[in-house]
Formats: sequence, C-alpha cells, structure tokens
Amino acid sequence: MLSENKKINKDNLTKVLPGFMELLPAEQILFEDFKTKIKSSYENFGFIPLDTTVIEKSEALLAKAGGETEKQIYRFNKGDNDLSLRFDLTVPLARYVAEHFNELDFPFRRYAIGKVYRAEKPQRGRFRELYQCDIDIIGKDSLSLVNDAEILSIIYSTFEFLSLKDITIRINNRKILNGFFEEYNLSKISVDILRIIDKIEKITKEEFVKELESLKIKKDIVNKILDFIKIKGDNDSIIKNLKSLKIKNETFLLGIDELSKVLDYSKSFNIPKNVVGVDLSIARGLDYYTGTVYETKLNKYPQFGSVCSGGRYDDLAGCYTSQKLPGVGASIGLTRLFDQLLNNNAIELKQATTSKVVIVSMVDDISHSLELASKLRENNINTEVYLEDVKFKKKLEYANKLKIPYIVIIGEDEINEKVFALKNMNTGVQKKLNLKDLIKTLKD
Amino acid sequence: MLSENKKINKDNLTKVLPGFMELLPAEQILFEDFKTKIKSSYENFGFIPLDTTVIEKSEALLAKAGGETEKQIYRFNKGDNDLSLRFDLTVPLARYVAEHFNELDFPFRRYAIGKVYRAEKPQRGRFRELYQCDIDIIGKDSLSLVNDAEILSIIYSTFEFLSLKDITIRINNRKILNGFFEEYNLSKISVDILRIIDKIEKITKEEFVKELESLKIKKDIVNKILDFIKIKGDNDSIIKNLKSLKIKNETFLLGIDELSKVLDYSKSFNIPKNVVGVDLSIARGLDYYTGTVYETKLNKYPQFGSVCSGGRYDDLAGCYTSQKLPGVGASIGLTRLFDQLLNNNAIELKQATTSKVVIVSMVDDISHSLELASKLRENNINTEVYLEDVKFKKKLEYANKLKIPYIVIIGEDEINEKVFALKNMNTGVQKKLNLKDLIKTLKD
Repeated sequence: MLSENKKINKDNLTKVLPGFMELLPAEQILFEDFKTKIKSSYENFGFIPLDTTVIEKSEALLAKAGGETEKQIYRFNKGDNDLSLRFDLTVPLARYVAEHFNELDFPFRRYAIGKVYRAEKPQRGRFRELYQCDIDIIGKDSLSLVNDAEILSIIYSTFEFLSLKDITIRINNRKILNGFFEEYNLSKISVDILRIIDKIEKITKEEFVKELESLKIKKDIVNKILDFIKIKGDNDSIIKNLKSLKIKNETFLLGIDELSKVLDYSKSFNIPKNVVGVDLSIARGLDYYTGTVYETKLNKYPQFGSVCSGGRYDDLAGCYTSQKLPGVGASIGLTRLFDQLLNNNAIELKQATTSKVVIVSMVDDISHSLELASKLRENNINTEVYLEDVKFKKKLEYANKLKIPYIVIIGEDEINEKVFALKNMNTGVQKKLNLKDLIKTLKD
Repeated sequence: MLSENKKINKDNLTKVLPGFMELLPAEQILFEDFKTKIKSSYENFGFIPLDTTVIEKSEALLAKAGGETEKQIYRFNKGDNDLSLRFDLTVPLARYVAEHFNELDFPFRRYAIGKVYRAEKPQRGRFRELYQCDIDIIGKDSLSLVNDAEILSIIYSTFEFLSLKDITIRINNRKILNGFFEEYNLSKISVDILRIIDKIEKITKEEFVKELESLKIKKDIVNKILDFIKIKGDNDSIIKNLKSLKIKNETFLLGIDELSKVLDYSKSFNIPKNVVGVDLSIARGLDYYTGTVYETKLNKYPQFGSVCSGGRYDDLAGCYTSQKLPGVGASIGLTRLFDQLLNNNAIELKQATTSKVVIVSMVDDISHSLELASKLRENNINTEVYLEDVKFKKKLEYANKLKIPYIVIIGEDEINEKVFALKNMNTGVQKKLNLKDLIKTLKD
C-alpha cells in the first residue's frame, strides 16, 4: 500500500495539467512532422513566418477580444504589468501589423505556427494549450477576391502535404446570409437563427421548424428559411438557385457575386473537382468574418468537425489603427486534429527517434564507431552511436524499441577487413559494405 | 501636437512588452533559419524532439527551482490551479522523464527548442521571453563519459551549421575545483571564491588578491589559488600540470581523470584542434553540475559571453523520483545570441519573405499566372502571385522591397509564344524560357 500511495503523490506532482497535451517520443516525432509539413506548405505559397510573443498586455489583447473568449484568458499581474497569454494568433497579428505598419509591405502574407491558451473546461478534444497554424493575407485599403480562392488552394495543398487530401472545404459568404436575414427583417435575431441552422444535421425537420417558430418567426418565413437551407447541388446550380430567389437585397446580391468570383478564381488553382462545395449553412457565427467563410472536413472522419476554418474580414486592426486592413485567412487547430487522428488510429506511429542508423560496437575501443558516426553525419545521415558499455543484446533491444531502421555493427573482423556490417532492421538482412556503399545505402 | 499624443497612445497599446523580442520579416526569416539549423544539427546526432507544456504546476517547477530563479518566475492562479511558466527546459525534462520513466528507452537522447520565461530586469541583451535550444542525454543509473565528449561534438557541429564555427569551447570539471577547495579547507566559501575567479579577466592581479584576502584566506593559500588559476597551456600540459600539484584529494584526482577521458574521447569526434580548451576558471557556479562543465565563446565576439553552456549532472530528477538519472547536456540561448549577432551586424539580413519567385501578370486575366504558380509549387519552388490589380511598377517595387530573387512576367506576347519572361532581380538579366527550363532555372 505504501508504494501505491507514493505513486499517487508522484503522479500529482509530475503529471501534466489537465487539458494540456504531452506526447511520447514516437508521437512527438509525428507531431513535429505535421508542423514541418504545414510550414513547408505555407512557405510553398511564399508566406512570411511570424512569431509573436505568447505574453501580451491584457489591454492590447482585450481591445479585440470579447464575449466567451475573455473569460477563458489566462490573465495575471507581474510587477506593474497586467498581462495575458494569447488565446489566438489573429489578435497578435492585428497588433503587430498596426505597430509595424510603416515597416511592412502589403499585401502582407504571413503564417504563424504557435501555442495559444484557453482556460476551457477540460474535456476530450478540448485543450488549454493548443497549436494553431494560421495563414493570412492582409491588404492595405483593399484586397482582391483572388486571395479568397488562394486560401482554398492553400488549405487543399496543406492537407495534401499531410497525406489527408480527402477533404471537403465548405464555403459560404456571410453577405448572403446577412442579406437574406435583412430581406426578411430577421437581422436582429440572426445569431439565434444561425445557431439553429448549425444544428440542421443533428435534428429532425420538425424540430428545426419548431425551434425557428420559437423565435416568433412567421410560418411563411420559416418555410423560406427551410427552402434556403435546402438548396443543395453542385456549386453552379446553388449559385443559379440563389439568383432565382429574386431577392433584391444588395448585401445578398453582393454576397452571391463574391462567392461566384471566388469559385471562378479557384478553378485556376490546382484544386480537384468536388473538394470545394458551397454550403449555405456555414456561418462561423461567433467570428468576425464579413465575406467568404470556410470550414474543412476530413471525408473519412466527419465526426472530427471542422479541422481548418477561416474567412475574410473587412478590417483586421480597427481597434488599433485608423488604417483599413482587409484580410483573408484560415487556421488549422493542430493539437486537436492530431489528438483526434491519434485516437482514431488514423495515423501510424513509426520511429521513436530521429536516427536513421545506430552504430553498435562489439569491441572495447569505441573510436572506430565515433569516427564512422562523424562521416555519416557529414553526409546528412542522422546517426547515433550506442555509447554505453552493455551487452550486445541490450543494444539491439534499444534499436528495436526505438524502431531505428538500420544498425551498423563494428567488430574485430569488420575493423580488420575495413568494412561495416549493415543490418536492415525491417527486413533483417545483413550485408558487409565498404564506407562508400554504406553511405550510399543509408542515403537512399 | 495632437498627432504626437495619438502616436504615444497607439504605441502604448500595440508596442511589444519590454524584454520581449519582436522581429520584422527579414529578421524573422533569419531567426527561423537558425532554429531550423539547430534542429537539423541535433537530429543529425539522432536526438528526439520534445515539446513540453509552457505552463506547469508551480509545485512541480518549484520542486527543482531555487534562489534567484524563483523570484523571476511568472506565477499565477487560474481556477484552483497554482500555475507557473517554465523558466528553463531542464526542469520540465526532469518532470517528464520522472513521469514517463517506464515508457522511455535509455539513454534518453532528447532535444527541445522552445520559449522560456524569466521576469528579469529588462536591459539590453536580457529577455523575459527567450528561446532555449537544449540537448541532453539521460542515462539510467549510469552514463558513460563518452557522452560528455559527444556534447562537445554536438556544440561544434551546431555552430558549424550556423556558419559560426570559429568558436572556443572551454571545458572544466567541477570535481577539480571542488577537490581543490576541499584540499585547502575552502569548501564552505567555494561559491565566493568562484565568484572572484569569474572576474579574473576583468580585474588586476592586485584586486584579485585583495578580494581573496577579504575572505580571510591565508596568504600562502591565496598564492596556491593564484598558481592554480594561472595554469594555462594546451590541454595535455594543463592536465600534466594539475597532476604535478601533488594534491591527493580523491575528488580532485577523479576530476582530472574524468577531464582527461573526455578530452581523449573528443579526439575521435571530428572537432578541429584548438576548439576545445581546458579552462580551470569555468565553474557554472549557480548551476547543478557535478562533473564536466562547458562554456562556448565566439572567437570574433568574446564580448557576447558564453553562447552555449552546459555540463554533467549526477541526478536529473531526484526531486521527482527515486530513480537515479545522470545526464549531460548543453543549451544555446538563441534569443540572446541572435539579438547580439544582429546588433553587431554579424549576420546579414536577406529576403523578407520565403518566396523564391513572384509572378507578375501584365494582362487582366490572372488565370495564366495562377496556373503557372501551381506548377512551380508542385516542383517545390516557393511561389507567390502578385494578386492585386495595381500598376506594373508597384508590383516590381514589392518584389524589390522583399528581395524576392526572381520575378516571372506574363504578358500577351508570352502567352501567345507559350514562354515565360524570367528576371533575375540580383543581376537584372531577363530571359524568355519555356516551362521546363523555367522550372530548371528556379530549382537550381
């Protein structure tokens, strides 16, 4: 019993906080690989990395935050400073662009991959420390709608880099929804309607109608909303259908025009057919978008919800500067996505180290191993030497557990013959090779 | 006057906190390049990335922290939790290894590149949010001294990756100092003596003697310390000299033996002669090292102080577990190093974006540009299209300001001839190329 008590105490001290992700080596290697691929994809489109501070002045963060977000902020004092941890990467971007406006060139194309903090109620799939991978294009005064199409292309390419290209990017335009609500004098309750629309896939038609009626919406208008939501089909037919509604509201018509243009532009990017689909129920209700909105689903895992969302905003930094800075962007919630992929066995853990090869010495003099390691490293082959003086079997066990693909064995024979015994740990095949062939095999 | 006041208010809100580094695009690109190179170098030696949480339980962090560090911790409550931001990467490593001991394989070779937080008095070169790049090897029960030599090799290789290979790694062994102080019954005031020794390069011999005498050390012992500190020369002669002191203290002799072995092993790694130099005044006084200690200087910029320090510790996680976990490691203070290099014009700012090429359309129909961009991106060429509808001159200005190496111009002629006009922005040379040659040129 004593040892169990001791274990509990130890657990209390060293266990990671609830809502914080802590990975084991093989998981971490895969997570780093995801980060690297997202970075490569964003840079493939010529974006600039930006790494703002995790701690910000509370006054600056709260100038743009609001509602639920504010309650979730980690806020504290240190000395005279009222500080907060960033809860997203967009507010710091807005502050940065306002601060460095005269030093930046526009359109400002930036990406950011970093941790943000939200004191949410810990529950499966919700994290208090989470990586976001954001990409945004900020214009000065104006920004072409081609950028909205480019974001579609970036989202697709990035998931292609991640070997998760079986996705659907659902697109809509806020102006279409806002215009529709304006047309029927529903603007004041639009948030409530959107909340019901968000549930459309989870509730019956009867429940849907009942909820709308509970907002005191007249029967004929409820039917209009129903008809509107029911508009399905390929993108062209949805656009055609929207136009046929004969709604004359200017916002609505501008929204249709913007959506059509974005879809047209997207055809010039290499996005396969059927990846981008108009969905009039996409609203990103609680965000600050003013035009295009996106959500992304993995077709094999619709239960994950949106794995990459974003949209267009008319004015990024209005709370910091009088400059008008329209932008468009998207964000991958990497920590949550990775956690879901792991839990659904959708990704396979591989190596538990970065080594391509481990050198194992059968002789006491380890200098041969160290010299070979230097040569392999010079050839960009990630190499480690098993440096501890233990039995051969234990060294092999280590290589096996970490799933290192190759081991090189250096014994007396090998030293005398000036060769190296290379064992492929996957096939079990062992060969004697000279240095040149060894390097060649390991580089392939 | 009004506008000046307005500016001040804006500055107050959007200016980054004192002691926090915020970079402009060209600087950030270079900083990311440093991080990538350090990561590549650490992985070249087969280390495992580890990314622990920035927020830890205060109880866990403080179990291993102490003294000055404790005062500098960002500590706060959220709900029932007493939380702190990590102030280094070693304490989280210790907690992690204790927590996951049964799931890890030893020797556990991990690196970590991440932000840590210290509420130091803001002053030039001191940061409150700073990147540390740590690499450590943790053994179970024991760890061979070859590892101490490998860390020397990793330090050298990493600075070589950073094109800063003109370094001196100064090495010492704590046991030599501790043994020497034991021999002369100075153990109780060893910290004070070390503090004076640390100043040896900055004060005169007379001041040095005076300060030692103020500790009530007898004249003949002061001379012994002086002689000890004055031991200079190549590594072999210093070792010889130390042995000739005829000190019989066991700790002292063990220290000499360890230092000799580490130096011997280091000869099998590809570290050029004169990079590693024994320096008996290196102590890393406030750290928890128990054997080998390192400091690294850039030979061209000795005023930077140590840019990479580390050493061996007998027991990493004694405060968390009864397992004995000896280790050895080193850490690069990247934020400080980068800041010093920038301020001394020791690194040259290059591009302000990741784009290799920007495509500029002379025609209204941008689809040709977008299609070319997709083809270049598929070939791993970082590409952007200037998407805004502005004058050609303005597009060129953008490419120039961001120092994008190439632009591709697409006009009516090019579209008709099925070629692309490629302009090298460094040489000013412009050529018409077909797609294949364009890709080839841009890939080179």
